[in-house]
Formats: sequence, C-alpha cells, structure tokens
Amino acid sequence: MTHFTSQEQYLRYLDSRGGLPEGFRVGTGELAFFPRERSLQTPLPMRLTLILLDEPSGDFAGVYTRNTFPGAPVLIGRQRLDGAQVRGVLINNKISNVRAPRGVEDAEELLSELGRLVGAPAGEFFPASTGIIGWSLPVPEMKAALPALVRGLHGGSCLDAARAVMTTDSYPKLKSLPVGRGTLLGFGKGAGMIEPNMATMLIFLLTDLAIPRDILRRCLSRAVERSFNCISVDGDQSTSDTALLLSSGRKPAVPEEEFQAALDKVCGDLAVEIVRNGEGTAHVIRVRVSGAPSFETAREAGKAVVNSPLVKTAVYGNDPNVGRILSAVGDYAGNRGLRTDPRAVRIRLGGEEIFRDGSFLLDGEKEKRLSAYLTSAMMDPEGKKFPPHDRTVDIDISLGMGDGEALVHGSDLSHEYIRENADYRS
Amino acid sequence: MTHFTSQEQYLRYLDSRGGLPEGFRVGTGELAFFPRERSLQTPLPMRLTLILLDEPSGDFAGVYTRNTFPGAPVLIGRQRLDGAQVRGVLINNKISNVRAPRGVEDAEELLSELGRLVGAPAGEFFPASTGIIGWSLPVPEMKAALPALVRGLHGGSCLDAARAVMTTDSYPKLKSLPVGRGTLLGFGKGAGMIEPNMATMLIFLLTDLAIPRDILRRCLSRAVERSFNCISVDGDQSTSDTALLLSSGRKPAVPEEEFQAALDKVCGDLAVEIVRNGEGTAHVIRVRVSGAPSFETAREAGKAVVNSPLVKTAVYGNDPNVGRILSAVGDYAGNRGLRTDPRAVRIRLGGEEIFRDGSFLLDGEKEKRLSAYLTSAMMDPEGKKFPPHDRTVDIDISLGMGDGEALVHGSDLSHEYIRENADYRS
Repeated sequence: MTHFTSQEQYLRYLDSRGGLPEGFRVGTGELAFFPRERSLQTPLPMRLTLILLDEPSGDFAGVYTRNTFPGAPVLIGRQRLDGAQVRGVLINNKISNVRAPRGVEDAEELLSELGRLVGAPAGEFFPASTGIIGWSLPVPEMKAALPALVRGLHGGSCLDAARAVMTTDSYPKLKSLPVGRGTLLGFGKGAGMIEPNMATMLIFLLTDLAIPRDILRRCLSRAVERSFNCISVDGDQSTSDTALLLSSGRKPAVPEEEFQAALDKVCGDLAVEIVRNGEGTAHVIRVRVSGAPSFETAREAGKAVVNSPLVKTAVYGNDPNVGRILSAVGDYAGNRGLRTDPRAVRIRLGGEEIFRDGSFLLDGEKEKRLSAYLTSAMMDPEGKKFPPHDRTVDIDISLGMGDGEALVHGSDLSHEYIRENADYRS
Repeated sequence: MTHFTSQEQYLRYLDSRGGLPEGFRVGTGELAFFPRERSLQTPLPMRLTLILLDEPSGDFAGVYTRNTFPGAPVLIGRQRLDGAQVRGVLINNKISNVRAPRGVEDAEELLSELGRLVGAPAGEFFPASTGIIGWSLPVPEMKAALPALVRGLHGGSCLDAARAVMTTDSYPKLKSLPVGRGTLLGFGKGAGMIEPNMATMLIFLLTDLAIPRDILRRCLSRAVERSFNCISVDGDQSTSDTALLLSSGRKPAVPEEEFQAALDKVCGDLAVEIVRNGEGTAHVIRVRVSGAPSFETAREAGKAVVNSPLVKTAVYGNDPNVGRILSAVGDYAGNRGLRTDPRAVRIRLGGEEIFRDGSFLLDGEKEKRLSAYLTSAMMDPEGKKFPPHDRTVDIDISLGMGDGEALVHGSDLSHEYIRENADYRS
C-alpha cells in the first residue's frame, strides 16, 4: 500500500485511481429532513448516490445479509436479482429502511420516480440504504432531490460517490484494478463500529468486462466468502449488508480465473480497509488459523479470537496478554464440540512462538518484545483521516487437526468505539 | 434486595448473613511473589483462601468450564469428582495456572503440603485458581503461606473468604438461605470484565444438609444451566470457570425439589450480582426470550442481544436505539438457520411495545420515555463499592415460533470496561 502523510494527498491518490469503467456514470446529492420518530429542532442531513449504467445490462450479481430481519432494500434487491436487466443503484445513508411501516412501498415509490426521470423501468434499479433501523425514509424530500441527482450524473472519477456513501467513515474506500482490456472498480462503506446507527456494509463493484451473469454470480459468492465474510468489526451482521456487482459489458471478457483473482483482490483490499477505518480501530488484528477441520471452522475460530472483548482490549492496550488468545479459541471449540488437543496447538504472535507442546512459552524479554510489536502496529484511533500504514497484529494459530485454513481480520476495542456508539443519536 | 447507602452498611449486612453452615471452616492469607514471566521491580500480591470440612464428606458436586484449554485446577478437579471423599478447597487469585509448564504438578504439590498440614490425603482437596493465563504458580511462596492459612481457619461468618476470592470485583458476592433445618451458602467471584486478566467465575456453594451426592450433582447441573449459563459479561467463557457444591451432612436432608429451589435462588442471585458488579457495568440488561423453538435457542438469542456491542453501547449511552435489538436477533437467527417470521415477532423495552406485526412502533414521545427509562436503570460504573439498586433494563422478545423461553442477564459496554481491560498488567 502507498503511504500517505495528509488527507489531501490520499484523496488525490484515490481520485487518480477512481476512474469509472466504461458505460457507467455516478451522481451525488444532499437533502435535509425531520424524522417522524424523534422530536428535533434542526433537520438531519441525508446523502444520495446514484450509479447509472448508460444501457441496461443483464450481467449483474448481488450478495445480501443473512440477518433474518433484512431491510426493505434487501427484500427488494433479492427480487431484482431474478430480473432480466439492471440499470442502476440508488443509495441513501442516515436511515436503513429496515422494518419501518411501508418500508418496501417507500423504496419502490422512490425507484418509480427515478425510473420516470431516467426513462427506465423502476424494476431495473436496486435500492441500497444504510442508517438507523426502524425509521421511515423521508420520501417527499428524497423525491424532490432526485432531479438534481440525475442532472449531476458524470463519468470520470467516482471519488465523489465513494465519499457520498460514507457515514462516519473517516476516509473513502475505493479500489480499482485493470483487468484484461477493462477495469474492475469497487467502493463502499464499512461495517459495525464505523457508524453508530449504521451498522451496515455496502459494497458496489463495477466492471466494463463482458462477463456473463452466471460467472459474475459464482465469482462474487466466492470472493465475498473469503473477504467480507472473513472480517469482523464487532461481530454484528447488519440487517442491510449488501455487495452488488454490475457489468456494462463494454470490454471483452477475461477468463473466469483471471476475473476471480481480480475480484478477490479488490474485495480483500476493501474488506481490510473497512476494518482499518472502523471508528475507534487502533489496531487491525489479522488471525490466520490453520490445521482446522475445515475452512468454516478455521474462520469461526479466527472470528472467535477477533471478537473476544478480552483479546480486543488487550491489543488496544498493547498488552501481550496472550492467554486470552488461547482462551478464546478454547471457548469457541468447547461450545462447538471441537476436540482440540492442547499438545498439537501452536500459537505465534508477531512471529514469536508463544504456545507449543501444551504450554505457554513466556519470559520477561519476550513480553517486552511483544509489547513493542503491538505498539508499532498501532494507529491513532481519533485523528485518522487517511490510512496511516498497513501494519497488522499477526496472530497465527495452528490447531493440528486438519487442513482447514482461513485468514480473518478484525479490530481492537477502544474508548473511541464506546464514544462513537454510546453517544445519543443526533 | 435490600438497598445500601454505604459500603460499610453493605459489608455489615453481608457479615450478618455470612454464617457458615455447620461443619465448615474457612481461612484466608496473603503472599507476595515475582513472576518468572515478567521483569518487575516490586512483587505481585496473591491471596489464598481455604475452605475446610471438619470431616471428609462423600457428598459433593462440581461443574466446570467447557473451554477446551482448561486450567490445571479444572483438569485436577474433574478427577477429584470421581473420588470417594472431599475435605476442602484451596483457592488462589492472580494466576489461573492454565497451560503453564508443570501446572498440574505445581497444583498437586501444593495440595500435598496442605494435606500434610491438615492430616488428610491430598486427593481430598480441590484446587481453584483465577488470574493470568499461561503463568506458573509461585509454589515456594504459596507453600510457605499454608501453615498460617491453616492456623487461621475459623467458623462463623465467611465474609473474609468472600472478600479474599475477589480480584477486581468491587464488592463481595455472598448469598445465604435457610433451607429446612440447615443452610445453603454461596460465595464467589465474577466473570469477564470483573478482572482484566482473570476472566474467571469461581463459585463455592456450602451446605450442611445431608443431601446425597447424586442429588447434589443433578441439582447443581440444573441450577448452573439456568443461572451462570444464562449470564454473559463479555461473551468469554474462561479456561477456569468453576462451581463447586459441598455438603457436610450435619443436618437432615430436605426433599430434592426444596433443595433445587434454594440452589436455583442462591445461584440465580449470585449470577445477577456477578453481572451487576462487572467492572464497567453501568446497566444490567435482562432479556426474556419467549416463543423460541427451545430453551437453548431462547438462551442463545438472548445472549446474542446482550453480547452485541451495538446493543451494549446504546444501552450504556441511554440511547433507545431499538433497531439494534432486532438486528442482533436476526443476525443470530440467520447464522443458526432459524426461520423467524418478522410478523410474529414482538419486542418490548421497559414494558413499551416497540415492534409488532413486522414493523417498529416509534415516535418522538416514546423515544423520550425509553431514554428516561434507560437513564433510571443506570449505575455509576466507576464509583460503586456496593450494589446501588437492583434495577435492570428489561427487554422482552417473543419470537412466535414455539414454547422455548429463557431469561438472560448481561451488562452494557462502557469506557470503564476498556480502561480495566486495556491497561497494561501490573
């Protein structure tokens, strides 16, 4: 990763990398509204983002949350996946449109108005919302903002769109790769702690490569499984998590393996950036679990480590309290009925062996080295407006049970997290 | 619960309730040591506690952690459960004796010395340790402290023992009930956030009722399942969690149902006190899940709510961000493959209906009432030296799927938790 010393430098870098694939335009807009669910003196701001294909396309894919109380945009989007064509995506922040009265009708009303303005069927648009659960969208104010949104559509860099979908993300997340004669571009907003009331990950992947729908869907499922499904900021899977992949088909296809590799790379990089940019994240924790009975158990064991509040707070405090790592794995294994053999387990932290042959290997000097290692991987959790470095706290756990392996990224647990998530909504 | 306005008043109350059942004595002691795993200028303090039966007893029971990397005391204790008789329990804090080199041998060496001093086989003593995982016990210093520990054994109130097993618990946890012509007394230390490096729950239950071993074991398993296994401070099940139940047999037995009810009450009260006294706990959250397919799914759904960092931080901030409750349940259900029907789900917070017929029921006035309700249930997380009140944040969730029901207690997530758990060990 390129390193940055100022936000402006970082934004210039992203802008230079943010060129849209052929056949796409984006636009952004703002509005203000009074929610009916609270008594407020000043209105709340909301940002809209529109992704528009120049022509409808039959090649698109989507992966949605497994939360059993999904939002209206998820319910609608799942239906749209069965449709013949897609034309674009309408995105809003501030309210996630989850289980509000008339939530589906509200979203459809907005898409109808959008379709009328663009001259396309409402059924060719995906909705995507992030924000407070349970509140209703301010439909009149949003409809009034659509004409300006459509007028402002543009090609070139989509940095403005990557910034507009942000909520309390402190910097935009945008990745682009040349693939064959075309481009794969992804941008999105993060999960969990990134926004107190908007515990939602939204990811938009755009390509001009003419990859058929069935291949797009296969590739996206695989890529999500090993990227976004291998991160955890705070263990909460939201009601609105969404990853959409659209193709304009303007450039010749590449072989599936080549596209898969590019998609894995873009999704993997965005996933790690989402963790790194979690509000309150001071350390990115990278856990590699190997020797598990399966990929799934490896991933779950890794998530047990990065989701353990005791591990997370120790890392935040640069405290090599390595016993908590073993305890988190053993807690997971015990609850899942996995028969681990302590003598077969090996654990490393920052490359230092800390557990082998059934016992910890600890001494005063190692403790000092590990503490220095944790300190060196730290970021300032309050001031970051750009990724200060790409260092991680590396934990390697070998269970000695099988061939299953997974790489999981998570964040520590800081005061800033509490501050962001406990403050009264305003 | 009696309410207290000073720590002294609370301790006097506990002391008056802390009378040991007949046939038991307790003693406490202190020592200082330099751990080999760290370079320190000043020694660390450790407290010892001894529970001694006047005569060996064949009637005892124990329940241990399911963590697959249990500590040496757990490994030894599980064997002791198969023994003919028990004479006592030796407890230490500061180091949990988990996966240290020679951990089992160290514990056995201490019990041999204790047995020699008391005149009983080492095999009649249970060890129990709480503290840092991976470090070795300071065996010479601990052995040197045993004679004074034995000399100091006494009957009467066991408040000193309830205080000695504390780590950073801010007040002792002790409950006693008259049962038939005898007594059931329980004391212990809490779990998770109560102590940064000592994420362990240790519970000791003593009775003079002559309840046979098999009934004791059946009753303890049932009681633990619905008390300690229904609380979560931070979701971490430690390597050392222990609940032991010993009978001196000095008083006539009561029917099993009567003993079960008393045990349920003592364990339930201790469990809630453990949550209330979690370092950093500002609110106790009580989730009742009903209409689940089974007790187990009800309990897991309830734990998903009290373990959600987003729910915990919202409660800490007195923020009625009720969407996070639904999201946590839906996240759990999705991952477990439970097919919830949003239209059948009902949720109440503090008695106020917030979700019904598939939609949230929110307005500005209700928001104000809910915020005031959360504020009224708050405790000062930094200053409490005694339980200030017994109020809880009550969340009722009906899934509309079956007859399974569970009551789960958890804590919020505060700045104090981070402070306690991130600070460097010292």
